[in-house]
Amino acid sequence: MDEEKKIGTYAYVAEPFHVDLNGRLTMGVLGNHLLNSAGFHSTEHGFGIASLNDEDYTWVLSRLAIDLDEMPYQYEKFTIRTWVENVYRLFTDRNFIILNKDDKAIGYARSVWAMISLKTRKPADLLTLNGGSIVDNICDKTCPIEKPSRIKVKNSVPLASLKAKYSDIDINGHVNSIRYIEHVLDLFPIEYYKEKRICRFEMAYVAESYYGDELSFYSDEVGEDEYNIEVRKNGTDAVCRSKVIFKKK
Amino acid sequence: MDEEKKIGTYAYVAEPFHVDLNGRLTMGVLGNHLLNSAGFHSTEHGFGIASLNDEDYTWVLSRLAIDLDEMPYQYEKFTIRTWVENVYRLFTDRNFIILNKDDKAIGYARSVWAMISLKTRKPADLLTLNGGSIVDNICDKTCPIEKPSRIKVKNSVPLASLKAKYSDIDINGHVNSIRYIEHVLDLFPIEYYKEKRICRFEMAYVAESYYGDELSFYSDEVGEDEYNIEVRKNGTDAVCRSKVIFKKK
Repeated sequence: MDEEKKIGTYAYVAEPFHVDLNGRLTMGVLGNHLLNSAGFHSTEHGFGIASLNDEDYTWVLSRLAIDLDEMPYQYEKFTIRTWVENVYRLFTDRNFIILNKDDKAIGYARSVWAMISLKTRKPADLLTLNGGSIVDNICDKTCPIEKPSRIKVKNSVPLASLKAKYSDIDINGHVNSIRYIEHVLDLFPIEYYKEKRICRFEMAYVAESYYGDELSFYSDEVGEDEYNIEVRKNGTDAVCRSKVIFKKK
Repeated sequence: MDEEKKIGTYAYVAEPFHVDLNGRLTMGVLGNHLLNSAGFHSTEHGFGIASLNDEDYTWVLSRLAIDLDEMPYQYEKFTIRTWVENVYRLFTDRNFIILNKDDKAIGYARSVWAMISLKTRKPADLLTLNGGSIVDNICDKTCPIEKPSRIKVKNSVPLASLKAKYSDIDINGHVNSIRYIEHVLDLFPIEYYKEKRICRFEMAYVAESYYGDELSFYSDEVGEDEYNIEVRKNGTDAVCRSKVIFKKK
């Protein structure tokens, strides 16, 4: 298949309630659009969450890494293009490019997904599912950003904590992946967002948390304007880990 | 003008990260889509926020009331239709109908808006703006739900409180209108949402709050499954008032 045909292209607009104090799209909303784009693309290629649910399988996001030069401004149109870079037995790598209103690249993202059985919660073998046809989607388009890193956090004193509430919970009864992004970014004072912008954001989803869980946020400053953050539930188990790198505007 | 032509029609889909534990669209996301539909419609008719900003005017949402039989389910398409019911000197009434995937009415909403000068923060006279042409949009379509009520809250002991964070703040530096909806609905325990659904939701926006403000939530149970809620900032001034009516599923 023509490589270009393996890339999904989806158009969005930066809605007024989806931008921050700077008028720029929030990272949580960008994350939502990336994941929606992944969903549209996999559905169009017969590997969507909906069609797979009939067979009791669902996609689970494992890692996400986003590099950005700029975020779309309020009311601006932008485009997300996505493609599959690799398929392994238990994981698949899906990449993204974010184009601004003039079709100029303003960012890239990498994601890692597993597919699990809803009955057994065990991972599926991607290379045998649907006769292994998922590999036909592999595309050789390059993604010029670093892969998600291994994030470690040493700090044992939480910076903040909160209880997971109704608005945090998704259809599976879990705290939803986008809410973690918002809660992590709420750790930084408003001055950060006035003077700086996020140039890289990473999230590794490790375990699920549920309604009423106490989520605590531990942060290490690991470089200039670079933070590793771990979210733990009920004081013990890691739920997710994030890296946030800011850059002076 | 033909009455039908005065109605704006906008198509949406219930995205996976926009549904709650029941797989139903959240009230906050529905509110966002209602306000976006209002924005699209007013822009198409020359009264949008963007075109008006050039003239230093902006729309301010004063009240919102939503009656619902059902919320769209995950991945379902739905449609919002909106029209102007009345224009007064300082306020305009805009109504909405929400149609499900089969074009059946599943809910209605009413909203009240003012237009203010960004320089003086004073309200504009809607009947003289743009030569008074806004009245040409008035449409006689009926909206069979009650108008927003006067909400009063007597309780002086807050049910919950929180500090406004980065993710709460919009381009104007205010806590955004949708976040108040989410915070109000987070006051109710998860069992409410498992056993009941919201059949009416109201919000009256009274004053602005800002980053770092302490928001406290006061609630009166005023009937069976009916709650009046007031949000106050820094222990004193009312910011908004809400009414939530639940109904057993």
